[in-house]
Amino acid sequence: MKNIKVIAFDADDTLWVNEPYFRETEQKFAELLKEFLPEDEINKELFKVEIKNLSLYGYGIKGFMLSMIETASKITNGSGKIQLINKIIKLGKQMLNKPIELLDGVEQVLKSLNGDYRLVLATKGDLLDQERKLIKSGLEKHFHHIEIMSDKKSVDYKKLLKHLDCKPEHFLMIGNSVKSDVLPVLKIGAKAVHVPFHTTWSHEEVNGSLAEYNYLEVENISEISKFLK
Amino acid sequence: MKNIKVIAFDADDTLWVNEPYFRETEQKFAELLKEFLPEDEINKELFKVEIKNLSLYGYGIKGFMLSMIETASKITNGSGKIQLINKIIKLGKQMLNKPIELLDGVEQVLKSLNGDYRLVLATKGDLLDQERKLIKSGLEKHFHHIEIMSDKKSVDYKKLLKHLDCKPEHFLMIGNSVKSDVLPVLKIGAKAVHVPFHTTWSHEEVNGSLAEYNYLEVENISEISKFLK
Repeated sequence: MKNIKVIAFDADDTLWVNEPYFRETEQKFAELLKEFLPEDEINKELFKVEIKNLSLYGYGIKGFMLSMIETASKITNGSGKIQLINKIIKLGKQMLNKPIELLDGVEQVLKSLNGDYRLVLATKGDLLDQERKLIKSGLEKHFHHIEIMSDKKSVDYKKLLKHLDCKPEHFLMIGNSVKSDVLPVLKIGAKAVHVPFHTTWSHEEVNGSLAEYNYLEVENISEISKFLK
Repeated sequence: MKNIKVIAFDADDTLWVNEPYFRETEQKFAELLKEFLPEDEINKELFKVEIKNLSLYGYGIKGFMLSMIETASKITNGSGKIQLINKIIKLGKQMLNKPIELLDGVEQVLKSLNGDYRLVLATKGDLLDQERKLIKSGLEKHFHHIEIMSDKKSVDYKKLLKHLDCKPEHFLMIGNSVKSDVLPVLKIGAKAVHVPFHTTWSHEEVNGSLAEYNYLEVENISEISKFLK
């Protein structure tokens, strides 16, 4: 990979742990409602409500909280007590207050690239929540620019590149989601590296073969340095 | 006002109607709970919960929905039916789906300034919701840059100016909130114009005298053109 000038990093599950907290909360949520439905059916219902609300709420914990509340009401047929809702709000607030757990190799790789490249954070989710996580992470100082995006489609990356005044051939995106961090980036003629994470939200999964796409996959984020030099 | 190069506009209640929709929803919310408390006490409780949650949720409708739900649970002492929660979620979704009502003179003033100045939209709130409102408004084409901010303190404006590569003496902010659009902007040495709106959220109100501050107040946004020339 030559001529790269700007390297953008996804945040959740690329720099720090995120998705496991959603899975953990979903389990606790199912536990609250177990007298009404078995766990896997509760999770299916929740997923349906989340996807239905996604275009209205966008990504992030607040929308997830509202979808859990709506699902609880649906599953209990409106007959549950409000007490239950308190418990769901508490689960959501716990998520918002989670400490940041950096992934292995992240700090070193940012330190080693900073100076040679313009480093950008490009992430979806709630504005305040993502800003707070970045500050808690201690990684803010490595980034030239922070972009919190309402979505990560090709058109959103085009806007980002225009805004950064960067040509596609000079742009590299690094992230754990093939759907959000790799395919839309390749589509606009830029480069992407996939760093898989062990847990992926169903909505981020890709159906179909990826054989035709030309991108690099590394096991640990620290490996990208050797491909840049 | 000479040497202005960048003009930033607040969005809610500066370009389009917003706060009256919150007031309207608060009234409907109080109506739902009227068997438990009188309207003004319900609104006081809601405001308390909103302020308590503000640092966690940030500004915007999703946080407002979650605070209404939490308040309903508090006021009913956890004994209300989940049915009530459905109605609150519906109120919130109606807010998210409201059409945009532009304020008088907005379109003309943006059209007339575009070309002579770099126009920026600088607003608080939920990322996706503010982007959606901007698209619905038809005003997107006038803006060089959109900044959705998690807060509007002096430090946030400093970051914005750095990001825009603009000196304070070349920056003018226009908005309806003295607390968020005027005072923090004056503090960093930039200029501000106040365009009052008839309805202001209590949290945006300023206590104390404003006599010492040097800023312009206009009744209609279209008046700013004459002060720039």
